[in-house]
Amino acid sequence: MKLKRSPLAPNSFPQMPVVEGLKMWTAETGSKYKNRPDVYLVKFGKNARVAGVFTKSSAPGAPVDWSKKCLAAGATGGLLVNAGNANVFTGAAGVKGVSDLATMAAHTLSCAPSDIYVCSTGVVGEPLNTLPIRKALHGLKNTKICSWEMAARAISTTDTFPKGAFANANIDGTPIKICGIVKGSGMIMPDMATMLGFIYTDANIARDVLQTLLSEYCETSFNAITVDSDTSTSDTVLLISTAKAKHDEITALNDPYLLGFSKSLRAVMLDLAHQVIKDGEGVSKFITINVSGAKNARAAKTIAMSIANSPLVKTAIAGEDANWGRIVMAVGKSGVQVDRDRLAISFGPHLVAKNGLRADGYNENVMSKYMRGDSLEIHVDIGLGSGSFTVWTCDLTHGYIDINADYRS
Amino acid sequence: MKLKRSPLAPNSFPQMPVVEGLKMWTAETGSKYKNRPDVYLVKFGKNARVAGVFTKSSAPGAPVDWSKKCLAAGATGGLLVNAGNANVFTGAAGVKGVSDLATMAAHTLSCAPSDIYVCSTGVVGEPLNTLPIRKALHGLKNTKICSWEMAARAISTTDTFPKGAFANANIDGTPIKICGIVKGSGMIMPDMATMLGFIYTDANIARDVLQTLLSEYCETSFNAITVDSDTSTSDTVLLISTAKAKHDEITALNDPYLLGFSKSLRAVMLDLAHQVIKDGEGVSKFITINVSGAKNARAAKTIAMSIANSPLVKTAIAGEDANWGRIVMAVGKSGVQVDRDRLAISFGPHLVAKNGLRADGYNENVMSKYMRGDSLEIHVDIGLGSGSFTVWTCDLTHGYIDINADYRS
Repeated sequence: MKLKRSPLAPNSFPQMPVVEGLKMWTAETGSKYKNRPDVYLVKFGKNARVAGVFTKSSAPGAPVDWSKKCLAAGATGGLLVNAGNANVFTGAAGVKGVSDLATMAAHTLSCAPSDIYVCSTGVVGEPLNTLPIRKALHGLKNTKICSWEMAARAISTTDTFPKGAFANANIDGTPIKICGIVKGSGMIMPDMATMLGFIYTDANIARDVLQTLLSEYCETSFNAITVDSDTSTSDTVLLISTAKAKHDEITALNDPYLLGFSKSLRAVMLDLAHQVIKDGEGVSKFITINVSGAKNARAAKTIAMSIANSPLVKTAIAGEDANWGRIVMAVGKSGVQVDRDRLAISFGPHLVAKNGLRADGYNENVMSKYMRGDSLEIHVDIGLGSGSFTVWTCDLTHGYIDINADYRS
Repeated sequence: MKLKRSPLAPNSFPQMPVVEGLKMWTAETGSKYKNRPDVYLVKFGKNARVAGVFTKSSAPGAPVDWSKKCLAAGATGGLLVNAGNANVFTGAAGVKGVSDLATMAAHTLSCAPSDIYVCSTGVVGEPLNTLPIRKALHGLKNTKICSWEMAARAISTTDTFPKGAFANANIDGTPIKICGIVKGSGMIMPDMATMLGFIYTDANIARDVLQTLLSEYCETSFNAITVDSDTSTSDTVLLISTAKAKHDEITALNDPYLLGFSKSLRAVMLDLAHQVIKDGEGVSKFITINVSGAKNARAAKTIAMSIANSPLVKTAIAGEDANWGRIVMAVGKSGVQVDRDRLAISFGPHLVAKNGLRADGYNENVMSKYMRGDSLEIHVDIGLGSGSFTVWTCDLTHGYIDINADYRS
């Protein structure tokens, strides 16, 4: 099945600068895809620092196990990604496959295999043939380094557009760059979606500070989006600092010079996360769901995710229906205790329900017009406290069924 | 939108006998539906005992609040059901509406309003007009009692077939009848599905024993099915005993005479639950998911529900694809700790994966043939313990999107 470019795709890939200290290449094995790169190799450079966040799945793939070990050991050599085969549920051969890939990349980059992070995305349950990747890596280091757009293309599977984001920052007068690429959640037929994200900066920041920032911002970006409630076995986000910028190293979270950097990092991560939703299978609407007035932020996130994952809510939005009854249902099924008669629900600027019943002045025509937009906001106030949280999702359309069920026809 | 009869519907409504001591009637208000009953009135009779189970939603409708109070107070007068308006999220007017309905039914049946259970199903957020129901109830007690099939039709909303089940039992030589009707999970446009179930028996069994049996069997029947993971604000199941059978009252759960009755009750409840799935929106496959080898039954149910609710699993089955990679994904996202390399997965009699990788002898042609059936079994063994659980679900098809998103076109 040929996938059409998402109607919510940006017009073009952003202009993104080189991050000093970083070298990266792409290659084409021809194994599964034609006329596009499917191997991505990165050398992080001397003094690099790496932070990482992985899938919460309790049955992750062998590459996730490998990269978790790299992170724990403080590996900083580089990264190898292959697209087309996720090397998941492949038993002992899969474990050996990851090790082989790391050895090949290490050979190319002249470091130890244990210094190489490995990410694989694609079909699940198929044995991974590493030979074409070995061939592709041969001599790769001597070729021209790749563009961000090519890198984004190399790691993608059935994404309908390459995804990148960039921001400037400033630490103690030194200009700083933050560049990120991401893939997902296009579906690799016949298997599951995977999100891979790689964010690079030249800022000189200690590893534990980077890890804290990454973990914290993931909760409100990559872990605050959902296409269909399903969780991949391979999700990985890495944040790599080359530490080439010429300011003093930042070693503490409360360093005031960190403020601007943190803000820019969060903006890049949020931009990338939103692009994943805008490429959700069958997407026709980008939906922001904000829950306020919960007892705490955790309760607000649980309720927001319950709304975002409800097939009834998502199909209603696909049908351009401001169906607040289904929102009430999703709040009620979240497991969080609420008071039905305190709920208030708005779609964009339009209040639709308040104090447990339809709002005075509710106007079906006004609502219908609002629902025809391709970016919608749903706000739910629980009326019990000050906890709030925002998540992002897309609607559930025939396109989703086409991509995920109909590929045999 | 005209809904087509589910392809998994039974050929006909079962032959079901009268339960002694019970009187029931249906009426047609013409408010929302034409040429079908939409009011169902039941007189439980002297000495009746009632057990009940309600939605776990934390934002239930006013009728659920009312009926919960009836149950707690031991009400045994009767039941009034209206279809077309769920009287949910209707504020103080909704609370008064339930009370008005109970008063009307109590007047008709000559008992106290607090003795009448009330269930409403249909549109959410619309004020309920009780006047047409009052008119329909006028003189209803003097009309002919209704058939089980008419009762099942009266409580339905967009169900595509009426649902009933029947079993005989025997207590101490006395023949016992168990008759049940259920509605769901057809969607009442533009709002959420609701499941209502009413099961009647003439067995003479104490109320607390009935309640224990109902609560226990709900966990493995009505609470072990899922169409789309969404939970209604109105779900209600009542078990009513008229106590007319002429055996000694059963007052203890360990009474050996209870064994046969329990088995028949469970069979009726399971039959009704399966019929709900066979009328799931857009259903084309009836799917049994059995998880074994978990640490305990609770873990097995969590994993089974994670599989049953996964849109990726459900769309794969709609596409007749034995996509065991998505099963692994759904096991991994359940939150239950598993060992990837111990998982075994079968589709029907066909082992597809074992010890963390594709099974030897996996044959795509054999699997494709199996997947074309309209009743499929997925078995997952976790390999860690002896906990097992079975749930039932249906696939996710274009029909689901049609019903839930496209009704504005």
